[in-house]
Amino acid sequence: SVPPGVLPLCRRLPAWGRAPRQPPGLPLAPCRAFSNNKIMVELDESAGVATMKFKSPPVNSLSLDFLTEFCISLEKLENNRACRGVIITSAVPKIFSSGLDITEMCGKSTEHYAEFWRAVQEMWLRLYGSNMVTVAAVNGSSPAGGCLIALSCDYRIMVENPKFSIGLNEAQLGIVAPFWFKDTFVNVVGHRVAERSLQLGSLHPAPEAHKFGLVDELVPEEKVQEKAGAVMAQWLALPDHARQLTKSMMRKAVLDRLVAHREEDIQNFITFVSKESIQKSLRMYMEMLKKKKG
Amino acid sequence: SVPPGVLPLCRRLPAWGRAPRQPPGLPLAPCRAFSNNKIMVELDESAGVATMKFKSPPVNSLSLDFLTEFCISLEKLENNRACRGVIITSAVPKIFSSGLDITEMCGKSTEHYAEFWRAVQEMWLRLYGSNMVTVAAVNGSSPAGGCLIALSCDYRIMVENPKFSIGLNEAQLGIVAPFWFKDTFVNVVGHRVAERSLQLGSLHPAPEAHKFGLVDELVPEEKVQEKAGAVMAQWLALPDHARQLTKSMMRKAVLDRLVAHREEDIQNFITFVSKESIQKSLRMYMEMLKKKKG
Amino acid sequence: SVPPGVLPLCRRLPAWGRAPRQPPGLPLAPCRAFSNNKIMVELDESAGVATMKFKSPPVNSLSLDFLTEFCISLEKLENNRACRGVIITSAVPKIFSSGLDITEMCGKSTEHYAEFWRAVQEMWLRLYGSNMVTVAAVNGSSPAGGCLIALSCDYRIMVENPKFSIGLNEAQLGIVAPFWFKDTFVNVVGHRVAERSLQLGSLHPAPEAHKFGLVDELVPEEKVQEKAGAVMAQWLALPDHARQLTKSMMRKAVLDRLVAHREEDIQNFITFVSKESIQKSLRMYMEMLKKKKG
Repeated sequence: SVPPGVLPLCRRLPAWGRAPRQPPGLPLAPCRAFSNNKIMVELDESAGVATMKFKSPPVNSLSLDFLTEFCISLEKLENNRACRGVIITSAVPKIFSSGLDITEMCGKSTEHYAEFWRAVQEMWLRLYGSNMVTVAAVNGSSPAGGCLIALSCDYRIMVENPKFSIGLNEAQLGIVAPFWFKDTFVNVVGHRVAERSLQLGSLHPAPEAHKFGLVDELVPEEKVQEKAGAVMAQWLALPDHARQLTKSMMRKAVLDRLVAHREEDIQNFITFVSKESIQKSLRMYMEMLKKKKG
Repeated sequence: SVPPGVLPLCRRLPAWGRAPRQPPGLPLAPCRAFSNNKIMVELDESAGVATMKFKSPPVNSLSLDFLTEFCISLEKLENNRACRGVIITSAVPKIFSSGLDITEMCGKSTEHYAEFWRAVQEMWLRLYGSNMVTVAAVNGSSPAGGCLIALSCDYRIMVENPKFSIGLNEAQLGIVAPFWFKDTFVNVVGHRVAERSLQLGSLHPAPEAHKFGLVDELVPEEKVQEKAGAVMAQWLALPDHARQLTKSMMRKAVLDRLVAHREEDIQNFITFVSKESIQKSLRMYMEMLKKKKG
Repeated sequence: SVPPGVLPLCRRLPAWGRAPRQPPGLPLAPCRAFSNNKIMVELDESAGVATMKFKSPPVNSLSLDFLTEFCISLEKLENNRACRGVIITSAVPKIFSSGLDITEMCGKSTEHYAEFWRAVQEMWLRLYGSNMVTVAAVNGSSPAGGCLIALSCDYRIMVENPKFSIGLNEAQLGIVAPFWFKDTFVNVVGHRVAERSLQLGSLHPAPEAHKFGLVDELVPEEKVQEKAGAVMAQWLALPDHARQLTKSMMRKAVLDRLVAHREEDIQNFITFVSKESIQKSLRMYMEMLKKKKG
């Protein structure tokens, strides 16, 4: 069974279940930039907007450490009255995030798999259910879990470079996107596009992704941060409380579904990833990646 | 608690639950135009088509009186064998309907709020579930509850003037569209467009609204009634019974959801609207409207 | 009540509930082309792709015999390890399939109606839930049940000829598409397009069908089989197991719904089709078709 207390965040209520924060106008606690190992966070207090920059080279893969840091950073911002919105982007050239770290899924213990998967769930519950306005500034490729992060935001801006692609390509690796990845995807692109894209494990070049609404807007690389700021300002012009309740109304059914099936989903992941056939194909995939790099 | 009998319509079955009307071919009861204070109704018996024209200046706002008249008019037509379809439009220049009348939500008693909200629900249950073909001829701006009326019809024609806009802009006022406004919206434009538009409280100029399917067709102002008649004729070419059952199949889940949660939804409205913060922002909004007019 | 054993397939688990087939690499049983009366099946073992050609002139209507043969053919392929995908097309010029055979619904016994409807359900459960990749090469018009077959595949290619049309036009005949036709349609084109198209009983010319996603791609008539093969190869490039689980995740809710209400759906069909008014309009429709032919 899962050791308790591994990821202390997990036992808190997800963000979308919390009471709204205090109204603005009260004295603000000052908040400086903070950075841990893998994510740099800057807060512009005058705008009320934080920027989270992934800086975990070579590909910002979502390791257990990365996910833990992501959740802690997000929670700090969520609880900071000076922060109403967060822009998520990458400090690593050409990649937004390559998705789940496969080394966390290879040759580890059942306990490790459980801990890792709980952290993946936690990341999504916090981000998809965040009370803040969340804007993804996708300045590089964004497969699998990287795509999930973008899909979980309120708005997606992507660099118009067709060399950058985005998609839930799990099927290409012989694995299956979990139901809540699928639900999030369907909520953005609809059932038909999701069905086809998930079965083919498609990675869509930015222009194609834009065409069917996987991203909302394409911009030249040098404009992506500026654009993200402008979009954020537009969303922050709305009263927080009404916007938050509306967001919750739109997303609650899908969030509730994972909350209701969370332990079952962890068990499914463990069973799946523990299969020798899956271990083998993940090892092969890692070998391929190593050769590519070398 | 809610005084019984205030709106006698409410205790009847909603239209979508009724048995289909008698087949045509029986002797028809003659039916003249009828007009009360706020809505003019004309019936073209040869075509089997009624036109409901909102004539409640300055902005056709949905007061309790307006809603009651709307429900009574709709029920009369629904029960009239000579009437198979209704075109809904405005007799007031530049505005289709401005939505719920804010004066009904300000400084009134709990009983009044309950009565008002029940009438809003009733209007939607009757219109969204109508057995008749319903065509909205949107010949002016149509925010909030005005947009809901258009969304509840079978087909939406809008004047192509970009100065006319349409949308569920509740969030701009610091309030939240009820779940059944949202369900109706999602059924028309899909989850993603609805999520973004509701959170931003967007009012879409006619051409934009057409682009993502909020309205089905744009026409020049002088053609809107002619076009509505042509669309109506196309829909009336289908056998009533098959069309009605098909419509019910498409809309029943969403209608049933409000029927199942109707009293709860009224209580939510009362609690929400009774908050001092909401009262304050509604008063401010009314002040702003008065200054605008002045 | 329904005589047991009429359609022996029916009592098996639907395809989507089966365990995945054995992995490739084992010795393959050779499989020649087989043809019964109404459907010709060819299997290209090197590609792992079968082609099912409807050859039941004049219009490939879905009679009880046709449906039984369809289910048996599909099951044979499903259980054949040498077959991973199937292309469904017509050998009859200008028509893919005209849909359910109306003679099966006219002047027959209750038992016959039950048997017929069970076969229609079975066809859909097997096709929509197939583990194989299914590509519809729609080389002719495809109304009603013909459209359902296309909608149930993974991908739809249609000849670009605007004289060929496709759609669920049941309402035109005074009948109502069953809820699982509707669910399948909504999963492909979304709620709004489905609501309008089903109420109007629209038959969409190929270019229009393509525009709103009812078909995925248009090609010249002489290219349709080549294109179907290319699309199939693209889908077969994915590992079967991951693709199958993904497909099941996308379609399970809708398949389960019919499985849960199957007997009720049969009873509804019997009640409906046994009505004198429906019998009369079906007879009139058949008369009209005969005159058209003559």
